[in-house]
Amino acid sequence: MADWLTTLQTDTPQEGFELAITLARKGVAYTQTNAEVRDKLRPAYAENADSLTAASHVIATHFQTIAAANNYWK
Amino acid sequence: MADWLTTLQTDTPQEGFELAITLARKGVAYTQTNAEVRDKLRPAYAENADSLTAASHVIATHFQTIAAANNYWK
Amino acid sequence: MADWLTTLQTDTPQEGFELAITLARKGVAYTQTNAEVRDKLRPAYAENADSLTAASHVIATHFQTIAAANNYWK
Amino acid sequence: MADWLTTLQTDTPQEGFELAITLARKGVAYTQTNAEVRDKLRPAYAENADSLTAASHVIATHFQTIAAANNYWK
Amino acid sequence: MADWLTTLQTDTPQEGFELAITLARKGVAYTQTNAEVRDKLRPAYAENADSLTAASHVIATHFQTIAAANNYWK
Amino acid sequence: MADWLTTLQTDTPQEGFELAITLARKGVAYTQTNAEVRDKLRPAYAENADSLTAASHVIATHFQTIAAANNYWK
Repeated sequence: MADWLTTLQTDTPQEGFELAITLARKGVAYTQTNAEVRDKLRPAYAENADSLTAASHVIATHFQTIAAANNYWK
Repeated sequence: MADWLTTLQTDTPQEGFELAITLARKGVAYTQTNAEVRDKLRPAYAENADSLTAASHVIATHFQTIAAANNYWK
Repeated sequence: MADWLTTLQTDTPQEGFELAITLARKGVAYTQTNAEVRDKLRPAYAENADSLTAASHVIATHFQTIAAANNYWK
Repeated sequence: MADWLTTLQTDTPQEGFELAITLARKGVAYTQTNAEVRDKLRPAYAENADSLTAASHVIATHFQTIAAANNYWK
Repeated sequence: MADWLTTLQTDTPQEGFELAITLARKGVAYTQTNAEVRDKLRPAYAENADSLTAASHVIATHFQTIAAANNYWK
Repeated sequence: MADWLTTLQTDTPQEGFELAITLARKGVAYTQTNAEVRDKLRPAYAENADSLTAASHVIATHFQTIAAANNYWK
C-alpha cells in the first residue's frame, strides 16, 4: 500500500479527529481489501444505529492515541 | 465540515463530559452524514438499553481523552 | 442540566468507583433524556447477564479515568 | 454499601488480577443489586463462551488500572 | 488458586504477548472454574470469527498493560 | 511458535499501524491455531460490516500500544 500515514501530528484537534476516522477506516480496508465489497456493505451499515455506535467507538480509540501524540494540543 | 473542535480544554469536568458526548455523536455523524437518516434511527435506538450502554461506552472513551487533556482538572 | 460534576477527586477508591457508576449512567441519561423511558428499560436490562457485563465495562472505563485523576489514591 | 475498596495497592500482580475480578463483579452488583437475580443468571452466562470473553474484557480493563496504580509491581 | 502471576516483566515483546494471552484466559477461568465446561465450549467458539476477534481484543487490552509495565521493551 | 515479535519500534507510523494489524491477527491465530479453519472463516467475516468494525477496533487498541512505544514518532 502507498504511504498514507507519515505522522500523527495535526494542527488542530478537529484535524486529529478526522485522522482518527481515517485510521478507523484503514483498519477496515486492510482487512477487506476489496473496495467494491466495502462499498456494497456501506448502505445497510450506515443505517444501523448500533453499527454507527461501534464505528464511533473505534474512532474514539484512535482519537485517544492521536490526542496524546499531539500532547492534547495544549 | 465547518470548525467544530478547536480545543479539548474545558472549564469544568462537566463541560468535558458534555464535549465527550459531542465527540461521540460526531463519530456517528461523520459516518452517516445524512441528518435525516440519523433522526430516523434515533427513536428505536434510544429505547434499547444495550444501545444506550454502547453509546455510554463511547462517551467514556472520549471522556478519558478529555480528562487527561485537562490534567484531570486538578 | 444542573451542575452534577464539579470534580473527579474523591476521598477513597470506593467513592471513585461510585462516581464511575454515576458517569456511566449519565452517559445513558444524556442520550435518553426521558427518565420514564429509562425506568421502563431497566427491569429487562438488569436481568440480562450480557447487559450487566456491558454496563460493568463502561464503569471500568470511567474508573480508569477517575483513578488516574486521583493519582490512584497512592 | 459497606466499605469494600480502600486501596488499589496489592502485594503481587496476581492479587491485583483478583482485585480486578472483584471490581468487574462489583460493577454488575451495583447495577443489579438483587443477589438472587445475579445467582439465577450465572449458570447460563458461565456456559456461554462470548459472555465469558466479555467478562474477561472487563477484568482486563480493571487490571490496567490496578497495574498502573501499583507502578506495574516493578 | 496456586501462584501463577508473580511478575509482568518479560524478556521480549513476544513473551509479553503470550503473557497477555494467559491473562485473557485466566479471566475466563476465574469466571468459569470448571475446566470441563471450558473445554466443551471451545470448539464452537474457535470456529466463530466474531468470537475470535473478541478474544483478540481482550489480548490487546492486556498487552497494553504488559507493554507499559516493560517500558515497551525499549 | 517461532520468533515473530522482537520489537515494537517501527520507522514510521504506517509501519506501526501494520504491526498493529499483525498483532490483532496473532491474537486470533493463537486462539485458533488451525490455519485452514481461519481461512474457511475469512470470506463470511470479511463481508460482514460489524465484523470488520470489530477487527478495526482491535487494531486501534494495538496501535495505541505501538504508538506509545514509539513515543508517537515525534
